[in-house]
Amino acid sequence: MDERLKKQLDFSLEIDKEKTIFRQTHLSNHGRNENDAEHAWHMAIMAYILREYANEKVDIAKVILMCLIHDIVEIDAGDTYAYDAEGLETQKERENAAKERIFSILPEDQKREMVSLFDEFEENDTAEARFAHAMDNLQPLMLNHSNQGGDWREHGVTASQVYGRQRKTKLGSEVLYEVTDRIIKENIKKGNLK
Amino acid sequence: MDERLKKQLDFSLEIDKEKTIFRQTHLSNHGRNENDAEHAWHMAIMAYILREYANEKVDIAKVILMCLIHDIVEIDAGDTYAYDAEGLETQKERENAAKERIFSILPEDQKREMVSLFDEFEENDTAEARFAHAMDNLQPLMLNHSNQGGDWREHGVTASQVYGRQRKTKLGSEVLYEVTDRIIKENIKKGNLK
Repeated sequence: MDERLKKQLDFSLEIDKEKTIFRQTHLSNHGRNENDAEHAWHMAIMAYILREYANEKVDIAKVILMCLIHDIVEIDAGDTYAYDAEGLETQKERENAAKERIFSILPEDQKREMVSLFDEFEENDTAEARFAHAMDNLQPLMLNHSNQGGDWREHGVTASQVYGRQRKTKLGSEVLYEVTDRIIKENIKKGNLK
Repeated sequence: MDERLKKQLDFSLEIDKEKTIFRQTHLSNHGRNENDAEHAWHMAIMAYILREYANEKVDIAKVILMCLIHDIVEIDAGDTYAYDAEGLETQKERENAAKERIFSILPEDQKREMVSLFDEFEENDTAEARFAHAMDNLQPLMLNHSNQGGDWREHGVTASQVYGRQRKTKLGSEVLYEVTDRIIKENIKKGNLK
């Protein structure tokens, strides 16, 4: 087989492992923990359906791609819970090594493209990255809210921690930040958030 | 909350259920059964990485969207195994009812758009639908091949059944059909396919 195609197929098989990386978030209806592949799929569709609420004009195809690939590094680096201070300290280093290994399976031009897309998401400096981050925040918030804040209660998360993270949602979408704010307030009232 | 936004968020939560619809395909490394959301995510990334092998010029953003949403109807209709003759007889009817219920949660304009995208995939009459179908076939074939054809052996699937289904791959990509053909022949030789 052609070397280029072989690399592309090797990468395609490698990313299957993302389905075994589990998050702290639980599926709706008090389901099991969600994995990274499901989370990425969900974010990508939400980005498309909710695109009219992006603060700035976005290239929605690029947002969707970012959503789809933003957690591939967790195949090696594992999922770091948003409120795990210790894990967050080493996250960058672990994810950089993973990025290099996993995207290097691709042909050089596609490696460059994927790394660039991943870095753009991480740096959060473009309209597309900001809207993709809004989805990365809204999707688990929505699931957790549907489960009466079970994930927050389990980890003793505080309202100020959630607000800290959700600031990024505001950068991507003022409208969706209003929804977020309402959800957080409701969960404080119900005692689901300290 | 604005009625339009409420509908969009209700739809976003509803599709979470796709993560509980399991397929006959198993994850690589002899993993568990795969679910529809993971399958859709995997197909979408593969479509992007392998887009240069589409027989015709494709709007890749449209292909990716098709991949992402093509199994949403299975939330109600369930997964119909590609070689389940009985299930295939009632599949269309079950999926039509599901399509109507689930996409009707969206605002009318977005319902129309999603139904149209879903129908385009099903009818398989455009370059985008043909390439998306090639992914729908190649993705489970790749996983199953990585597991020494375990899914075929479990169901006693024959080579002619697999060739019957994989004809669609050829319509979307001659190059990827060559890969498919090689994989099928190897599995016949190893006795994984009758």
